[in-house]
Amino acid sequence: MTTAPTSRELAHPARDEIRLEGVLHALSDPIRMRIVREMAVVDTELPCSYFSLPVTKSTTTHHFRVLRESGVIQQVYRGTAKLNCLRRDDLNTLFPGLLGSVLAGADGQADRLGSGDRLEQAGS
Amino acid sequence: MTTAPTSRELAHPARDEIRLEGVLHALSDPIRMRIVREMAVVDTELPCSYFSLPVTKSTTTHHFRVLRESGVIQQVYRGTAKLNCLRRDDLNTLFPGLLGSVLAGADGQADRLGSGDRLEQAGS
Repeated sequence: MTTAPTSRELAHPARDEIRLEGVLHALSDPIRMRIVREMAVVDTELPCSYFSLPVTKSTTTHHFRVLRESGVIQQVYRGTAKLNCLRRDDLNTLFPGLLGSVLAGADGQADRLGSGDRLEQAGS
Repeated sequence: MTTAPTSRELAHPARDEIRLEGVLHALSDPIRMRIVREMAVVDTELPCSYFSLPVTKSTTTHHFRVLRESGVIQQVYRGTAKLNCLRRDDLNTLFPGLLGSVLAGADGQADRLGSGDRLEQAGS
């Protein structure tokens, strides 16, 4: 069942509510893909403010919400900040190999396009 | 470069024009996922009329176009019919493991949800 949100908790789908179509949709946007790739490189909880994105704050909030509601990321409040991390275990259990092949595919594409965003360093 | 279409040829992205985001978007729709899963099971060229889909003919045409324009499928005319097949080689070269993990993830999800569409038989 979806976690019931309180004023300080954000709604997340339980593992068995995560759907492949929703995950693929979440990952099909370049900004959301960039967020997910940066999270995968750093592999720790990150505040939304960590990400330097070429969109407005409200659009950033929207993208994080899509990622959370599709089950790709977990968001928790720590004080006034939202901290974000990938739901690697849930995704790997439900869809073995998917996240890894998407991340590798995004790296390969960045290399091919010479877009210089291979994200080998945190925050790059 | 994109293949220049003639009156009897349909435009397809060349391999190096296929983008991960476009492929993920194409696969994020349940109807398109169903088409791709059926193609993967049969693994031969299939006419659009092979697929029994719960949508109108024009919507079906739209879904096939999204799949073609994203590089997921190849469509060619044979007489008056369009024949369709997956671009497995192109996808596996660009994004190793992606198509396989998506198809396996879709099978696993169908099993979990008991939706009875595991597609072990052609046309099921």
